[in-house]
Amino acid sequence: MTYCLAIAVDEGLVFASDSRTNAGADQVATYGKMHTFTVPGERLLVILSAGNLATTQAVMARIRRDAENPDAGASLGTVPSVEEAAEYLGEILHEQEAKHEEAVAKAGFSAEASLIVGGQIADSAPSIFLVYPQGNYITTSDQTPFLQIGETKYGKAILDRILTPETTLDDAAKCALVSIDSTARSNATVGPPIELMCYGSGALALGAYVSLDEDDPYLLEVKRMWNQRLTEAFESVPPITWGETPSKSRFR
Amino acid sequence: MTYCLAIAVDEGLVFASDSRTNAGADQVATYGKMHTFTVPGERLLVILSAGNLATTQAVMARIRRDAENPDAGASLGTVPSVEEAAEYLGEILHEQEAKHEEAVAKAGFSAEASLIVGGQIADSAPSIFLVYPQGNYITTSDQTPFLQIGETKYGKAILDRILTPETTLDDAAKCALVSIDSTARSNATVGPPIELMCYGSGALALGAYVSLDEDDPYLLEVKRMWNQRLTEAFESVPPITWGETPSKSRFR
Repeated sequence: MTYCLAIAVDEGLVFASDSRTNAGADQVATYGKMHTFTVPGERLLVILSAGNLATTQAVMARIRRDAENPDAGASLGTVPSVEEAAEYLGEILHEQEAKHEEAVAKAGFSAEASLIVGGQIADSAPSIFLVYPQGNYITTSDQTPFLQIGETKYGKAILDRILTPETTLDDAAKCALVSIDSTARSNATVGPPIELMCYGSGALALGAYVSLDEDDPYLLEVKRMWNQRLTEAFESVPPITWGETPSKSRFR
Repeated sequence: MTYCLAIAVDEGLVFASDSRTNAGADQVATYGKMHTFTVPGERLLVILSAGNLATTQAVMARIRRDAENPDAGASLGTVPSVEEAAEYLGEILHEQEAKHEEAVAKAGFSAEASLIVGGQIADSAPSIFLVYPQGNYITTSDQTPFLQIGETKYGKAILDRILTPETTLDDAAKCALVSIDSTARSNATVGPPIELMCYGSGALALGAYVSLDEDDPYLLEVKRMWNQRLTEAFESVPPITWGETPSKSRFR
């Protein structure tokens, strides 16, 4: 499993991903899941991937070939908007899944993958899209300024509580990190290194980046502190006032 | 969807459940999912249910019939241990699912349900079991002193962080409540009233009970306080120190 997320706030975009890939407990490996494409001053696109690794690698290889081929119908270098990048990726994704779908399903696996693509092209606003295995896609709203793929549930609560369009880029990045840490704690197949990129609106170039290994001092400090503060927060919640013990068995 | 959980600590057991049931967004209803059976001084059993409502209602009806029938092969009144109650429930559950499985699957639904059963019988130790739709079952361990059914992921992080066998009954109950509140926040199909029961080891009778409605002042205070303290905890985590911006596009 994997966990990737992207956040769109007024100041810009945050991309975050873990780097663990697995196919059964004895085949746990580390692969980067954050892929960037940029033409400085003109466009910046970031792709996050989750799901079948053969599918996502085939999709990335195809994107790379298209980008280097001036005769390609579409490519990340030529799409006029982030939404059209999502459309382009959806087509490639669906095509690659279809290739091996039947054989992979026979082996009891799924060839499906999901992608997040985000960034900014020329003077359009920065945006992010989630591309489903079926090739269709969605974007964010003011109420939900984030998108997640992979093992999304364990780390959703903190995003729901903290993020609004007004959240600063630094806070959004910290929130993404806490969300991934919570997920890694509850699911052993999600884990470091954790990659984070922070894109300020209008930059049209790669943003600030950090990759945090398992023993990174800052990551260890965040884990320790978050655990301690959550425990304190829990202790400060008032205890339950119990009602009466029911006088008879309620079997209904 | 539903969310129920049970916790086994040294002092005793906690049972907790939400009360929302749904079959599509326009069929959201409220049903109790906590069922108790007791022979004071001899046995106390609590059953929590999640999954197909027709299946769980049929299971409960069958249990009630068996309990009232002195000729029944087994019943909650005669099983000699909580583990054998799990075995008995697994058989009934699997039987009820099989009855309508095919027709229900044709309509695009699942007849499956899961149960948690826990309690204490005579002088054996209190224990809890999770009964899978297939009829098999598991119990807790010192590392994982809780069992969950239904929408389990959103509320798992706080259980992982707080619960150990040494946790007090009151803290375990508060932790269950916070876990259900987190789940309700992230998934609209989980919601109040929230039922909680607290069973002290050796009591062999119904424990302290409370049912918290949506507008219960204590529940509102817990929600408000937990949200505020989590936000403060988040603010206290140090910000990310960004590394260098990568000098070129990494497309891999």
